[in-house]
Amino acid sequence: MRNALGREIPSDIVGNTSLRPYGEATCDGPERSASRCVVSGAAKLLPDLKTALREAGARNGSTLSFHHHLRNGDHVLNMVLDAAAELGLTDLRIAPSSIFPVHAKLVEHIQRGVVSSIYTAYVVGPVAAAIGAGDLRDVAVLQTHGGRARAIESGELAIDIAFIAAPTADDYGNVNGIDGPSACGSLGYALVDARHARRVVAVTDHLVPYPARRADITQDLVDMVVVVESIGDAAQIVSGTTRITDDPIGLEIAATTAKVIEAANLLVDGFSFQTGAGGISLAVAKFVGERMRSAGICGSFAAGGVTAMTVQMLEAGLFSCIFDVQCFDLEAIRSYRENADHQCMSASLYANPWNAGAIVNRLDAMILGATEVDLDFNVNVTTRSNGSITGGSGGHSDTAAGAKAAIVTTRLRAGLVPKIVERVTTATTPGTTVDVVVTEAGLAVNPGRPDLKDRLIAAGIPVVSIERLRDFAAAGSGSCCETRLIDDGRVVALQQYRDGTVIDVIRQTRRQ
Amino acid sequence: MRNALGREIPSDIVGNTSLRPYGEATCDGPERSASRCVVSGAAKLLPDLKTALREAGARNGSTLSFHHHLRNGDHVLNMVLDAAAELGLTDLRIAPSSIFPVHAKLVEHIQRGVVSSIYTAYVVGPVAAAIGAGDLRDVAVLQTHGGRARAIESGELAIDIAFIAAPTADDYGNVNGIDGPSACGSLGYALVDARHARRVVAVTDHLVPYPARRADITQDLVDMVVVVESIGDAAQIVSGTTRITDDPIGLEIAATTAKVIEAANLLVDGFSFQTGAGGISLAVAKFVGERMRSAGICGSFAAGGVTAMTVQMLEAGLFSCIFDVQCFDLEAIRSYRENADHQCMSASLYANPWNAGAIVNRLDAMILGATEVDLDFNVNVTTRSNGSITGGSGGHSDTAAGAKAAIVTTRLRAGLVPKIVERVTTATTPGTTVDVVVTEAGLAVNPGRPDLKDRLIAAGIPVVSIERLRDFAAAGSGSCCETRLIDDGRVVALQQYRDGTVIDVIRQTRRQ
Repeated sequence: MRNALGREIPSDIVGNTSLRPYGEATCDGPERSASRCVVSGAAKLLPDLKTALREAGARNGSTLSFHHHLRNGDHVLNMVLDAAAELGLTDLRIAPSSIFPVHAKLVEHIQRGVVSSIYTAYVVGPVAAAIGAGDLRDVAVLQTHGGRARAIESGELAIDIAFIAAPTADDYGNVNGIDGPSACGSLGYALVDARHARRVVAVTDHLVPYPARRADITQDLVDMVVVVESIGDAAQIVSGTTRITDDPIGLEIAATTAKVIEAANLLVDGFSFQTGAGGISLAVAKFVGERMRSAGICGSFAAGGVTAMTVQMLEAGLFSCIFDVQCFDLEAIRSYRENADHQCMSASLYANPWNAGAIVNRLDAMILGATEVDLDFNVNVTTRSNGSITGGSGGHSDTAAGAKAAIVTTRLRAGLVPKIVERVTTATTPGTTVDVVVTEAGLAVNPGRPDLKDRLIAAGIPVVSIERLRDFAAAGSGSCCETRLIDDGRVVALQQYRDGTVIDVIRQTRRQ
Repeated sequence: MRNALGREIPSDIVGNTSLRPYGEATCDGPERSASRCVVSGAAKLLPDLKTALREAGARNGSTLSFHHHLRNGDHVLNMVLDAAAELGLTDLRIAPSSIFPVHAKLVEHIQRGVVSSIYTAYVVGPVAAAIGAGDLRDVAVLQTHGGRARAIESGELAIDIAFIAAPTADDYGNVNGIDGPSACGSLGYALVDARHARRVVAVTDHLVPYPARRADITQDLVDMVVVVESIGDAAQIVSGTTRITDDPIGLEIAATTAKVIEAANLLVDGFSFQTGAGGISLAVAKFVGERMRSAGICGSFAAGGVTAMTVQMLEAGLFSCIFDVQCFDLEAIRSYRENADHQCMSASLYANPWNAGAIVNRLDAMILGATEVDLDFNVNVTTRSNGSITGGSGGHSDTAAGAKAAIVTTRLRAGLVPKIVERVTTATTPGTTVDVVVTEAGLAVNPGRPDLKDRLIAAGIPVVSIERLRDFAAAGSGSCCETRLIDDGRVVALQQYRDGTVIDVIRQTRRQ
């Protein structure tokens, strides 16, 4: 036969194979890519979110995803769901990487049936309360940051439309987080959504001439661009500065933790480290940094949500690079913008247990928090002791599983409520992945790590049993930790472990 | 039921869904990622390529992919196929992004049945001759750079094992191209293979402490690392410097081309540009740069294979950034290493017609070469006039399709062989995507672009018909362009257009 160019193509070439002759291309390949085909000259800029939802094929029951780099300053999730509600959409499944108090309006959308299913790695505020009270039609799925990446990459969580809160974008969908009034730094969590969603919409308040440089997310992944007045409240996106605790108990816990890391023989050249942005964690980083400096240790990398403290350590030469999934403060954003060794890390690179090896696998020491720890070293960061939802794993289970030393730092009690308990209210992170629990009354080592216990004792660090810590915690506790759980309350959420299995369920609680 | 942590999980949570209880994870998700699961503590460093092939599950008929950033200095393809032959593997399908004379040894592997199928975007040297002579069992598939990315991303070309020639790597598979004795700069072509292959093996001669910084390819994508003595011959990887033509005819063609770009009204703020590394192309870049400078024009981006000329233009502020799929010379590598505005571009971002919009879609002017151009403006860069294979599209068809002005620069004849002909021997790039043909005897504008013709004439640039150019070319030609095609020779290769359709076939030729 002759193709559209008049070239003779033997029929055994185009007849017996899936090959078609030139001129008869179809845009119906086996993957989402084939159905997009943004051709030269086509425009991606759309007038508003409603148009974007329509163009992206949003329907009742669609899955919409969001990321949380704008944290409690995020306007995008609310704006998109308002637009969806105005379009009359119902039964939406949403998959924000985290949900904050700013998303209170989502409660209305849940109650009206606009949203009936939620997948997220972290949820606090009114939405957490609404899920706990049983307002959501489906059982909410609480993931880990790495587990969310796994679910998306493996197809377990198929995203129809990913909305990218874009601090800077051009008209063709190149997106960076370093410029603009809502700059947030790394867009690590959004990278996975952008790569795997069926359609991707960038929402920006800072449209720049093409091409937006240093894009974390590039035009080949973004189908549409919508310009809005504001994607976020800068004051709520990042802290001006993250603060080290000045509380003597917190400082004592931090100092002990730094000693544990050294006694565990981890503080050698090549040391790698991650902490959160909490006051005790930052104090641990400070003490560890001082020790590295005085001992002349060259670490390999620091990872995580990144703070000014991490940046200081990089700039002091204590680490050769940073892997950054999100920036917590302005210094982190500045460093991410200026320093090539301050690198972006996708949520998959960070923590996905099903790829060829996440960064958490190479962590030496991880400093973790806890709502509760139990006698099996299981950690709860999902609910309060009374059963109400307050958070979820985020990267907790991922880093605990990966790090050589996963160290929980916690006070014995929150107010009068004991935090070292017989059995956690909700299991978020399995005790088999937690090595040490450090409190103001001493520290306990997981019996699964006798080697570590021996090292600490040899270094003169007093080690007590977890039962002893439980007793200390109980001794000073009050009667305020009354459950809010409803008898025979239905399961309102499940805590999914990073590998996709169900590690625990969360049941309905009374409204406050 | 109780899960492995002893938590009570209602059976409607884990019974009626695909969810499993904690402790019963399976690594058998729907995607390749699920079968990898590189756990914390596992090592990726293997002693040699044979072990890597075995560990990666290489079998008879497997598809192995390679990339060509080491060009005619590449040792990796030969080493891997030697190892495969020693393992007794046969019927392999290989998918190198390009094949060079250095890969001569592949001819033996073809003749012995180790390799029986080839997909590539460009092939010259002994392997091209062997394909032409009919040595390969299967019909070779010649792709475009963007079409190769499309085929891999869409699953049309499923890669079992991708081999990454890694100028620098750590023991966990972070790979950069900027350091080490075989530094080559951007690893743009390899990015697509690394992301989509079932298994990925990094082959390096420069193992550095973890983590290798500024990695183009990160550890989450790389399953194994093999250290070898040398991955490439530095002298053949990059030119010390790419040279502007000093031939008066070439300079005249280049000067005319620069005038065409200006007359086409493209030389305004936001101008974008790509050329190859040939002498005429570089001269066009020089003339265009001079014009931009004198007119004070701020371009947007330069793309492509990148040369010192492109870098000079970036550093002079003529463009705001570079998108780099491969570096052609040492200056390009230096700039890529040092300048954050000199950005990596994957082959998909570059040219894939099935993603959400490739960089080629935003090109204003593209300078192209040609072996032959015909009266329909179809271009041949796949075979010589005698039918023997010498190249293939590379990015030719992709950039022609995307650019506002796709300009072919060519002499009328190669030696005595006319290059402007009635009908091209092989159609690589369809004439509908080619706008102008510039020769030393004048230029022709595609009749499909009357607007452009009018602009050129208005600017005082003489335009002739393509038939006229054909006559000029024929007038001075000799009798040396005798076909080497064999009567009724079988089809030995097909030229696949970027959308996957068959634009032409290549038939068997006599051996030289």
